[in-house]
Amino acid sequence: MAHNYESIHFSSHGRASTNASKPEVTERLRAIVGAENVLVDPDKVEPYGGDAVKEKFPPEAVVFPSTTAEVVAILKLANEVIFPVTARGGGVGYTGGAVPVEGGIVVGTDRMNRIIEINADDLYAVCEPGITTFALQQEVEKHGVFFPPDPASYKDSYIGGNIAENAGGMRTPKYGNTKRYVLGLEVVTATGEVIRTGGKTEKNVVGFDLTGLMCGSEGMLGIITEATLKLLPLTETTSTVRASFRSMEAACKVLTKFTPEGILPMAMEVIDKYCIEAIEQNYAFGLSPDAAAILLVAVDGSRAEVEKHSVRIEQILSENGGFDVLRAASGADEDKLWDVRRAISPSLMKFGTLKINEDVVVPRSKVPELVARIEDIAKKHNTFVANFGHAGDGNIHVNFVCDRDDSEEIARARECVKETFQLSVDLGGTISGEHGIGYVKAPYMDYAIDRPTLEIMKGIKQVFDPKGILNPGKMFV
Amino acid sequence: MAHNYESIHFSSHGRASTNASKPEVTERLRAIVGAENVLVDPDKVEPYGGDAVKEKFPPEAVVFPSTTAEVVAILKLANEVIFPVTARGGGVGYTGGAVPVEGGIVVGTDRMNRIIEINADDLYAVCEPGITTFALQQEVEKHGVFFPPDPASYKDSYIGGNIAENAGGMRTPKYGNTKRYVLGLEVVTATGEVIRTGGKTEKNVVGFDLTGLMCGSEGMLGIITEATLKLLPLTETTSTVRASFRSMEAACKVLTKFTPEGILPMAMEVIDKYCIEAIEQNYAFGLSPDAAAILLVAVDGSRAEVEKHSVRIEQILSENGGFDVLRAASGADEDKLWDVRRAISPSLMKFGTLKINEDVVVPRSKVPELVARIEDIAKKHNTFVANFGHAGDGNIHVNFVCDRDDSEEIARARECVKETFQLSVDLGGTISGEHGIGYVKAPYMDYAIDRPTLEIMKGIKQVFDPKGILNPGKMFV
Repeated sequence: MAHNYESIHFSSHGRASTNASKPEVTERLRAIVGAENVLVDPDKVEPYGGDAVKEKFPPEAVVFPSTTAEVVAILKLANEVIFPVTARGGGVGYTGGAVPVEGGIVVGTDRMNRIIEINADDLYAVCEPGITTFALQQEVEKHGVFFPPDPASYKDSYIGGNIAENAGGMRTPKYGNTKRYVLGLEVVTATGEVIRTGGKTEKNVVGFDLTGLMCGSEGMLGIITEATLKLLPLTETTSTVRASFRSMEAACKVLTKFTPEGILPMAMEVIDKYCIEAIEQNYAFGLSPDAAAILLVAVDGSRAEVEKHSVRIEQILSENGGFDVLRAASGADEDKLWDVRRAISPSLMKFGTLKINEDVVVPRSKVPELVARIEDIAKKHNTFVANFGHAGDGNIHVNFVCDRDDSEEIARARECVKETFQLSVDLGGTISGEHGIGYVKAPYMDYAIDRPTLEIMKGIKQVFDPKGILNPGKMFV
Repeated sequence: MAHNYESIHFSSHGRASTNASKPEVTERLRAIVGAENVLVDPDKVEPYGGDAVKEKFPPEAVVFPSTTAEVVAILKLANEVIFPVTARGGGVGYTGGAVPVEGGIVVGTDRMNRIIEINADDLYAVCEPGITTFALQQEVEKHGVFFPPDPASYKDSYIGGNIAENAGGMRTPKYGNTKRYVLGLEVVTATGEVIRTGGKTEKNVVGFDLTGLMCGSEGMLGIITEATLKLLPLTETTSTVRASFRSMEAACKVLTKFTPEGILPMAMEVIDKYCIEAIEQNYAFGLSPDAAAILLVAVDGSRAEVEKHSVRIEQILSENGGFDVLRAASGADEDKLWDVRRAISPSLMKFGTLKINEDVVVPRSKVPELVARIEDIAKKHNTFVANFGHAGDGNIHVNFVCDRDDSEEIARARECVKETFQLSVDLGGTISGEHGIGYVKAPYMDYAIDRPTLEIMKGIKQVFDPKGILNPGKMFV
C-alpha cells in the first residue's frame, strides 16, 4: 500500500481490514488488557487514526496495556495471527509516525504513565512511556534537576513518542536533542521479546548501542516500555534578548558571532518578514515596519553568567545591524519577548486554510541562503511561504500556506515542498530536523539517504521485526 | 576460536593462518594500496598484534589504505577470498578491540589522517579516522572551538578508534562521551559498501540512527573512513579544587552536593588510600597520612562563572569533611594539583609486575559501596587492589596488582575481576564504562546483557557483515 504526499492533509481514509478485525483477536486482546481497555467501536477508534497531519487512518482496535507483560502478549498475538501494530503516545506528531496507515491495532501507552524513580543524586529518572514530557519535567524540577528536551508539543507529547521520534525543540543549540538524554530503555521488540538497552550511566560501552538506535526509530523496531533519562542540575536563571533586522541575512549572520566569545546560547529563534507581517496584522505588537527579520536569543546558567552573557548578546545584536533591541531577565518580561514567537502559527492561518508545515535543517550558516532560495521557489510556483524556527541549529520550519479547496494551489505547494527538500540536501542539510519521516516524508527518503544505507536500515528492521508487524507503511516505501 | 580472560596478559600467540596468507592475496593487497603500504614480514607485523592489554596476536599482513575506495577494495577482497579484517587506529585500547585474535589482516588507518574541514561557524569538523584526538583538538582550538572527549590516551589514540570504542575520559560528567559529538560518519561496511550516516547537524531525524549504532561498535560492523564531529565554543578558563578525606565514603558523598547549587563540574576524580600510599612512596608529594581518599573537582566556563563555582566548591569540600583543600586557577598551579592523579599508574607498578586494570561503572552514589565491596573481594582472595577514576560519573578503574610469574596469584586476581563485574551489575552499573569489550571482556557480556538483547546485537552484526569478516572473536563468544 503506497502512501505519499499526494494524498495527505485533511482527508479521511476508510478503515483497513486486517486480521485485527477478527472477533477472535478482539477477544484475545480483551483477555490481555481487560475489556475496558480495548476500543473497537468506529466512533471511539477514529481519534486514534490521526495526528497533527490531520489525516485519518482509523485503526481496527485500540488497546491500552498497563504493563510490559501486556505489551509482550499483544505483540506475540500480532506475530501469531499477523496484523499491524502501531504504538501511539500523545498523537501530536507532524509526519504520521503514530498513525496506523495500514490498519491493524493502535497500542496507546496512556496507562503506562508512571514515574518509577527520580534520582537527583545520580542525575537520572526512570519512567514509563505514557507520561507527557511536561509532566515529567515538572516532577523532576521539584528535585532540583531538569530534563532539557523541549519539543513545542511538550505539554501533549509523551516521552515515549519523543524518544521514538528523537524530538528536538528550542533548547537544542545548547542541549542537543532527545537522544542525548536517553541512557537506557526497556523495549518490547516486534516479536514480543523484552530487551534492555543501555543502563543508568552515561558511560556504558557494553555491546552495540541499541539505545541510540531506538531513538528516532519511529516505533518500527519495538515498543518502548520504560526509559532511563539523563538529567542535569537545574540552572539558576534565564534571559532573552530580542532584536529586529532589516534582512534575514543580517539576522542570521549574527548566529555565529557568539561562539568566538565563548557564549553558547540555549535558544536562537528566527522569524521572517512574512511571519512578522502576519503577526502584526493579528496581534499589533507594534513591531517596526522596517523589521524584515526578528532574532530571539536566550541564555541560561548562573545569575552571574546569564547577566554577563545577555548584556554581551545585546551589544553583539546592536553592533551587527539589530534594532529595537530588548533584553529581559527570567519572568514576565522575558515571556513577553517570546509572545511574537508564539503568535506565528495562529497568525499564518490568516493567509489560507491549509498550512503545510515542513521541517528542514541545514548547517546554520546556510540559513540565509536556504530562506532566500525557498522564497525563490515559492515565487516560481506562485505560493505563499513563511519561514521561522530554530535558526541556532539550522532547523527551519517552512510554511507553505494555501487554500485547502484549491487543488491546483495545493499541487503547486507540494512542488515547492519537494524542491525545498532537495535544496536542504544540496546545502549540506537534510529533509527532517525534528519531525521525523513517518509516512508523510517516506517518499523523499532517497533525497537524503543513499541506497546502501537504506538497505542497512531495512536489514535492521528485519532483525527486530521479521514479519513486518510494527508500524508498516513508514519510513521505507 | 575461544579467547577468554584465562589466556591473557603478557602472553604471545603464534600467527594464525587464514586465506590472508595466500600469495595471491598479498599481491592483490599490494595492487590496491601500493607495495610499500603492505607489511607481511613477521617482525614488521608483530607490533600490530597487540594493544595496551600487552598480549600479541600477530596479523598475517598489515595494510595502510589512504582512501575510502581502497578500504572498499580491501573489504571486497576479504569477502571474496574470506579472511578476517581488523581495523586499527592508535592501537592503545585496553580490551583488544584492534587486535586480530583470529589472524587475517590489520587495516591501519595511519595514512587517513587528514582534517577535511573545520567549520567554527557551524560548530563541526570533518576528518579522517587516523588522526589523533589530541592533534584534532589542537587544530580546532585554533579556530576558537573545542572537541570535548578526552580519553587518557588522547595523544596516541586515533579519532576512529575513539568513535569505534565510544571513548570516555575525565570531562564526561559535564560533556558526555564520544558518541555525543559524532554527527555523521562515512563507513565502509564489512561487505565493502559505503554508507553515510547522520550529517552535519545536531538535528537530523531521517531514518534509523546508524551514527549512534556505529559508536562503540568496536570495528565489528564497518570501518569508519570519515567522521563529522560536533564542536563547542572554547570555554574561557578552568579551575581545579583538590581535597583529602578521611574515608572514601566521605569523599564520594560530596559528589552529589554540587547539583543542588546548579554546579556541573567538568571532572570529578577520586583516588583511594592505596593509590595515595603508592604515590607518596614514589613521589613524596607530602600528602597527609590521614588522607584515605583524594577528590579532584574541575570546572570550566567563563572567568566569572569559574571563579564563583570554584570558590563554592572549595567551601563545599571543606564543609563536608575535606581537608588540605587547595584551589587553583588554570595554569601551572592547576597542573600541579593534577600531578597526584598522573602519578597513580606508574606508582602502582611498585606493588607488583602485573596490573590488571579494570573499568567498571555504577550510578555515582554507589561508588563508596562499590569500592568498599571491591576491597572485601580483594581481601577474601588475598589480592592487592587500588581504585581510582572518574567518580563523577561512577566510572572506577579497579587495579588488581600481582606478580606476573605467580600463576596462583594471577588466578586469584582473575576471580576478583569476575566478582567485581558481577558486583557492578548488581549495583545498577555495568562491566565497562569506557574501555569496551573486545576479546578481553567478551566472556562476561552475559553478566550485563540478557539473551534476547544479545540476539538482537548478533542479528545486527549479521546485517552488516554476513560472512563474519570484520574483527572476529570480539564481543560475542
